[in-house]
Amino acid sequence: MNSSFYRLSTHPMFTGYYPLRILSSLQKGCRRFCDLYRSMDTSSRLSLLCHIGESYGVDQRAIVDVAQKVIDSQARGEVLMLRTLERLRRALTPRYQLLLGDIGRLEGGVKFLADMRADILNMLSTTSSDLDRAHLEALQSCLRELLSLWFTMGFLQLERATWHSSCDMLQKISEYEVVHPVRHWADMKRRVGPYRRCYVFTHNSMPREPIVVLHCALTKDIASSIHSILDMRGYSEKTEMDLTPPMEEVEKAEHITTAMFYSVTSTQKGLQSVDLGNYLIKRAAVELQKEWPQITQFSSISPIPGFRDWLTGEINRQCGALKDCSLKEEQYLITQNEISSLCTTDSIKPEALIALERLKDHVINVTWTRDQDIVTVVKPILMRLCVRYLYREKRRGYALNTVANFHLQNGAVLWRLNWAADNSPRGLSSSCGLMVNYRYFLEDTVTYSQEYIEHKQIRASQQIKELCEGLHC
Amino acid sequence: MNSSFYRLSTHPMFTGYYPLRILSSLQKGCRRFCDLYRSMDTSSRLSLLCHIGESYGVDQRAIVDVAQKVIDSQARGEVLMLRTLERLRRALTPRYQLLLGDIGRLEGGVKFLADMRADILNMLSTTSSDLDRAHLEALQSCLRELLSLWFTMGFLQLERATWHSSCDMLQKISEYEVVHPVRHWADMKRRVGPYRRCYVFTHNSMPREPIVVLHCALTKDIASSIHSILDMRGYSEKTEMDLTPPMEEVEKAEHITTAMFYSVTSTQKGLQSVDLGNYLIKRAAVELQKEWPQITQFSSISPIPGFRDWLTGEINRQCGALKDCSLKEEQYLITQNEISSLCTTDSIKPEALIALERLKDHVINVTWTRDQDIVTVVKPILMRLCVRYLYREKRRGYALNTVANFHLQNGAVLWRLNWAADNSPRGLSSSCGLMVNYRYFLEDTVTYSQEYIEHKQIRASQQIKELCEGLHC
Amino acid sequence: MNSSFYRLSTHPMFTGYYPLRILSSLQKGCRRFCDLYRSMDTSSRLSLLCHIGESYGVDQRAIVDVAQKVIDSQARGEVLMLRTLERLRRALTPRYQLLLGDIGRLEGGVKFLADMRADILNMLSTTSSDLDRAHLEALQSCLRELLSLWFTMGFLQLERATWHSSCDMLQKISEYEVVHPVRHWADMKRRVGPYRRCYVFTHNSMPREPIVVLHCALTKDIASSIHSILDMRGYSEKTEMDLTPPMEEVEKAEHITTAMFYSVTSTQKGLQSVDLGNYLIKRAAVELQKEWPQITQFSSISPIPGFRDWLTGEINRQCGALKDCSLKEEQYLITQNEISSLCTTDSIKPEALIALERLKDHVINVTWTRDQDIVTVVKPILMRLCVRYLYREKRRGYALNTVANFHLQNGAVLWRLNWAADNSPRGLSSSCGLMVNYRYFLEDTVTYSQEYIEHKQIRASQQIKELCEGLHC
Amino acid sequence: MNSSFYRLSTHPMFTGYYPLRILSSLQKGCRRFCDLYRSMDTSSRLSLLCHIGESYGVDQRAIVDVAQKVIDSQARGEVLMLRTLERLRRALTPRYQLLLGDIGRLEGGVKFLADMRADILNMLSTTSSDLDRAHLEALQSCLRELLSLWFTMGFLQLERATWHSSCDMLQKISEYEVVHPVRHWADMKRRVGPYRRCYVFTHNSMPREPIVVLHCALTKDIASSIHSILDMRGYSEKTEMDLTPPMEEVEKAEHITTAMFYSVTSTQKGLQSVDLGNYLIKRAAVELQKEWPQITQFSSISPIPGFRDWLTGEINRQCGALKDCSLKEEQYLITQNEISSLCTTDSIKPEALIALERLKDHVINVTWTRDQDIVTVVKPILMRLCVRYLYREKRRGYALNTVANFHLQNGAVLWRLNWAADNSPRGLSSSCGLMVNYRYFLEDTVTYSQEYIEHKQIRASQQIKELCEGLHC
Repeated sequence: MNSSFYRLSTHPMFTGYYPLRILSSLQKGCRRFCDLYRSMDTSSRLSLLCHIGESYGVDQRAIVDVAQKVIDSQARGEVLMLRTLERLRRALTPRYQLLLGDIGRLEGGVKFLADMRADILNMLSTTSSDLDRAHLEALQSCLRELLSLWFTMGFLQLERATWHSSCDMLQKISEYEVVHPVRHWADMKRRVGPYRRCYVFTHNSMPREPIVVLHCALTKDIASSIHSILDMRGYSEKTEMDLTPPMEEVEKAEHITTAMFYSVTSTQKGLQSVDLGNYLIKRAAVELQKEWPQITQFSSISPIPGFRDWLTGEINRQCGALKDCSLKEEQYLITQNEISSLCTTDSIKPEALIALERLKDHVINVTWTRDQDIVTVVKPILMRLCVRYLYREKRRGYALNTVANFHLQNGAVLWRLNWAADNSPRGLSSSCGLMVNYRYFLEDTVTYSQEYIEHKQIRASQQIKELCEGLHC
Repeated sequence: MNSSFYRLSTHPMFTGYYPLRILSSLQKGCRRFCDLYRSMDTSSRLSLLCHIGESYGVDQRAIVDVAQKVIDSQARGEVLMLRTLERLRRALTPRYQLLLGDIGRLEGGVKFLADMRADILNMLSTTSSDLDRAHLEALQSCLRELLSLWFTMGFLQLERATWHSSCDMLQKISEYEVVHPVRHWADMKRRVGPYRRCYVFTHNSMPREPIVVLHCALTKDIASSIHSILDMRGYSEKTEMDLTPPMEEVEKAEHITTAMFYSVTSTQKGLQSVDLGNYLIKRAAVELQKEWPQITQFSSISPIPGFRDWLTGEINRQCGALKDCSLKEEQYLITQNEISSLCTTDSIKPEALIALERLKDHVINVTWTRDQDIVTVVKPILMRLCVRYLYREKRRGYALNTVANFHLQNGAVLWRLNWAADNSPRGLSSSCGLMVNYRYFLEDTVTYSQEYIEHKQIRASQQIKELCEGLHC
Repeated sequence: MNSSFYRLSTHPMFTGYYPLRILSSLQKGCRRFCDLYRSMDTSSRLSLLCHIGESYGVDQRAIVDVAQKVIDSQARGEVLMLRTLERLRRALTPRYQLLLGDIGRLEGGVKFLADMRADILNMLSTTSSDLDRAHLEALQSCLRELLSLWFTMGFLQLERATWHSSCDMLQKISEYEVVHPVRHWADMKRRVGPYRRCYVFTHNSMPREPIVVLHCALTKDIASSIHSILDMRGYSEKTEMDLTPPMEEVEKAEHITTAMFYSVTSTQKGLQSVDLGNYLIKRAAVELQKEWPQITQFSSISPIPGFRDWLTGEINRQCGALKDCSLKEEQYLITQNEISSLCTTDSIKPEALIALERLKDHVINVTWTRDQDIVTVVKPILMRLCVRYLYREKRRGYALNTVANFHLQNGAVLWRLNWAADNSPRGLSSSCGLMVNYRYFLEDTVTYSQEYIEHKQIRASQQIKELCEGLHC
Repeated sequence: MNSSFYRLSTHPMFTGYYPLRILSSLQKGCRRFCDLYRSMDTSSRLSLLCHIGESYGVDQRAIVDVAQKVIDSQARGEVLMLRTLERLRRALTPRYQLLLGDIGRLEGGVKFLADMRADILNMLSTTSSDLDRAHLEALQSCLRELLSLWFTMGFLQLERATWHSSCDMLQKISEYEVVHPVRHWADMKRRVGPYRRCYVFTHNSMPREPIVVLHCALTKDIASSIHSILDMRGYSEKTEMDLTPPMEEVEKAEHITTAMFYSVTSTQKGLQSVDLGNYLIKRAAVELQKEWPQITQFSSISPIPGFRDWLTGEINRQCGALKDCSLKEEQYLITQNEISSLCTTDSIKPEALIALERLKDHVINVTWTRDQDIVTVVKPILMRLCVRYLYREKRRGYALNTVANFHLQNGAVLWRLNWAADNSPRGLSSSCGLMVNYRYFLEDTVTYSQEYIEHKQIRASQQIKELCEGLHC
């Protein structure tokens, strides 16, 4: 019992030593609990949550008893076994599940639980106590299951956001956008204007809240750069209320053959690992095909967050190994030709080391944007190594890069790597200006999704495979 | 493997021996499953459901292993135990839960699952195989949990049905009404007209479907008879489209002090034991108090289904016991005075026996409605015995009568028994024309509900208690 | 000044001798006027309206002055003339127009004015005073203009009534239906069910009120009988709430090539001669072609009210003339062959007379429905004479039959006369069971409408023309 | 026939020499007319409109005939006279009214006509030809009447704009605001946020278009400065999407006793002289009293456009007259004391002249905002002269200032003149920073409106009257 418990224990909810069951039957009790929780700082919340996990979880002794009975039932027939399993399942239901369910019934209750789960996920990454972590894990897992059931597809409403949507909705969509931040209202107006689609999922339990947001552009071909979609030059000088002129444009069917998904955002941290983005992409694809039957290509244009960090890390490691002479030539990140092209002058240091350091310097200082000669040298290297990062680097067998992992799980194909695709400071510093297309062949996503999830196989296009061929990839 | 399985096994869903996991990821697969199921007759459905229960339930061997680990974990610390319990919980999730969840995501899927659960509940009461029953029980329990989470209060919309509501909604409300059947559209129009309220819960997952229906009358006092609420004489003669005249009436605040709940219906058998009627009554009470702050009394006027059957059963048992001479006088259903008043003529048979047979005769032939003298004799007896039925007769400690049990669980008070309260053929034959008021003191329902649920205590009014006093109750 | 004026003059609205202009600026004054008017009986209303017409119409002396100026302006240039005409126009605006406009601004005000105009139209046909009639005529003409502007197409909403529409809307549609009266709710449900369309115009100013109603059936061919559309046998025996079974039917495109308009009703007498039915048919046609592009035929199946009365009148006249010997043979309604076939027995009276009397007897007693031999004789006669009634009988050059006049004004073609098309008592007694199709060729309605309105030409099909050929038509 | 007619005459609409009547019966014809008109430049539009006025107006000869009949009817009884007047009225209806009515029936047609009338109003002020002006005047008068009937109150919907309103609606409200221009979205969000109300009228015929806009602030007292309502400092520095924080504020009833109308805008030039702003203020007042029954004061805080221009004009005139010695002392704009206080130094010029020139200098250079001593001298002079401007300066007997005239027509009271009430550059340059409150006593607006409209009496408060007393006002 920590000190904060004593403070808590004076709260009406805890003083009476009421069993949680009764408390939870009281809507008032639930509301009071929510208010109490909201008024607390993080450390008090941690104490409260751990206390709940500890005191209102499962009855371990009872479970052990039933577990024993399960073992004993083995020889005594299916019917008995099934009944015992039912008893075991009941025993495994934590007592706080009742409280959580009752909170979910309150107005705003589901949002509260999602936010609470977001808290717990944060706590899990900062708390050092193993026991606290175990309790928090059980609690968040119970919440995940409840939220996952409540956010079943059938209960989500697909909406298209347009300039006719409400200001608060568009403001939220703007604020939640982190892939390509919205700069001002004119920018936002463009993203819901002609040749653009913005779809959101909303949910009864969180009125006026976009749960997932998908931005899409209607184009003539698979875009190789974000700048063809988000060209915002010239807006900032105008007075900001003057947004009208370029928006009146009418969409022409002959300009539309491709749907480019250029941003997908799950806005609720508390719904992490409740799979919604995938469903939104697929629902949107259905809507788009209804609206524009001539659309034949569906693809993302996606950032590659982490590429530069990974690359500089790799270079550092190779440089260290080179200095130790522990690196074999066949492990080199770059080819001899590339080494030569990077080391234009003579040097005493071993060439490979110099070349790698030069490469790192290019990457860090983004030198190529000012010098076409550097592009000639650097582009093939970065392209190849980026494909290596996306296609070969794994974590537990799945793509290390989270965006890649998301699209591959959805059944997309690693389609095309694009040079100079995002030259914003952000794009240059996180992925050397590269972006990648993940292409969706609607007929095959289920098959490809399975291949990836079950067999960890990544589908890639010819371009990707060729970039990746040879010794050094 | 029964024969119907072989037939089933030729269905695409089963031929491939695909693990259910993958199948369920296919929306098409789910749709095909629903279509298949719907096209089947009851016995094929039974086979299919048992097959699913058997083949796609839990992996018992795996559970036994984890159960053993739980037992072993006992001595090895809380953290390990919690992790093992999490594993056990995962092992206990039947594989078909994924399929059910995916079906729930389909349009109309939740309704399909609710209907399927209704099927299973029927099968459970007709199937003789213990093993089948065990599988079905596990399946319906899994469904109950899913449905219960989906029908969380926050997702239910309260609507008031009026003559402005849609025809299909009012038609469904009419058809679902079994407490006091709706006779024609004029009758229905009255039930949504002035001094009446009809509230329904609807749910996103079942569009245009009233899930629970509550009929309410606004009155000057607690009604002692259904006829003051549902007076329908004279309508049948008119041409049925001519409904307008009496409906224009404007409600006057001074005539309204009481809200009488005269019918509450859960329309979906598949949602049995998902507690919705209770919530509807309470939401309606809130709405009513907002609309008419001067309302001070909330009460039901409820039928007493089963009273006559119970009473004739009791009489038969006493008659048998009297013949066997195994009945002590203090066990008699009726008092000596009542015996005398029932046996107006001399007789050779023991008076008690004759009296009971006469009573039974009265009950069966509903003799009192034509003869005021009989009323004088029979009314006090039936009133007392009916209170005994409602107040004393128990099943597992709770009220035997299901309507009583419903209202008492909700926290109502057994308030008043009413003579000649429902003289329809149906009312006379099921409850000797008696009806009862369960009164809701809004402030106290939570307390009373707990007293009943946890301590099996029934709150009753003075009238009820007095009727029940004395030797024979 | 009649006596009722004195009574009226004590009403606040009149006591102050306020000029109407000011009164009307008071919303309260308008409301009070409406309440006053509504509380009056017909004769008081007449007095009030005449009083308004007389006292708050135009200033005749002022008009005469301006009229003189118009005449004088002739020689003095266009500019002066135009200004004088503007003055004249202003002088011609009755003072009460301001009051009417202000009433129109009240909630429910437009409905009030429409109802008041309906009153005036009734009064016009019953009042004998020429002066009263002149004032009423001016008043109703002013109202007609206002209503006509308010009920401009752009402000009318097209709605499709279905079983999902509100009960009060369907009840009103039922009650307003006079062409083929709705018999019960099951009947109504059918008329909004599969293979049926029911369109209504509603208007902001009369919420929840169907202004015009159009019933339509989707068929395989142009229907030759109302019974193929309104088959209601067998419904009456069922309990009336049990409407579900036959409604679940799904419409199949291959069964739909024709849209049959089988009833169109303008519900507001006060909107008489404000052309709405025509617009509704055309809007409905557009909707239907959007929904079912394969529809190629649009046609009505229409009653022929007044045919039997006209026919018996004609027969009576011919009989009289025959007795007077003032009828030439070429004027005979029926041919010699027909005379022979009608007079099966010998007779002393002149054959033609007997034949006509027999014909009248057949018509009045509807003899043919029981005897196929009579059909052989009577059918060709009635068919020909009915075409004569529809095609040749005129009033001011336009079709005498009002239904014919309506469809011909809309630009329809007199397409096909159908025998035994409405065998209901009503159909037999008003039009000998005949019905007629007016066919709409959407491309040509504008042209045909002009031909009819401007040149009084009726477009008719070959069948009609052939039926009408020869001596006696 | 001017040359542009020849060009026009090749357009399908004119080539056929069809009478307009028929053309207009064709929806297609109307659409083509609208498209044609929209594609034209101003001078072609002028030609087209004059051509329509000339060729499709009234038949003047026919009118002269009927006018003669009216004169002749005088002696021949009321009934004949009324009928002749009806004929005259019909003859006075220009033929193009049919076309205009048909255009009004098109989708977007009413908006088209309103825009066309706006064009005509512009043409009227720029065209020099008297004949063209006469035709245009007749055309716009016909349009005004149609529009006025279509924009009857009953068809206007009152909406409250909030941050939940659609972006396009709020953008339009922003763009239309000219009284106090909206600077950015944060500014707009504030104007629909807590303690603010923004009401608009919309109309079916112009979807998504605010026809009239009223901005209102809820305050503790009648505001004496616009800065207390529109304080926008500090917003510009923030990133513009970050609008959230100050908006969450909850309105407290105890802070609200007064509704301040601080801007009212009619957005459609084509609806000029169709009285809508007045109705919006009154509807808004009703809404506000429903929402906040404790509101006891309704007032505007209004600009005084034209005050400085009027004042400098008056000074110039007096200076001229002084130089001519044609100004009597009792006509002086300023008192002797004021002259002394303005002329602090000795001077050879007559003091009055110097004083007036100084005053003009102050007014033009807005000197007082930097120097409290100048305020002491200048404030009483400007206050008095401004009251004179508002209260005494007339045009045709009504207030010269258009804003004053608007509120006085609505029945408001000239309540309080406020010093330093709008220190924006705009406010200083147009009205020396003064603003005025027009107060609405809801009970009395009808009476006061009549007094003003009929008797040209202005209701003013004590403060106004006192400021205006004495020799020089």
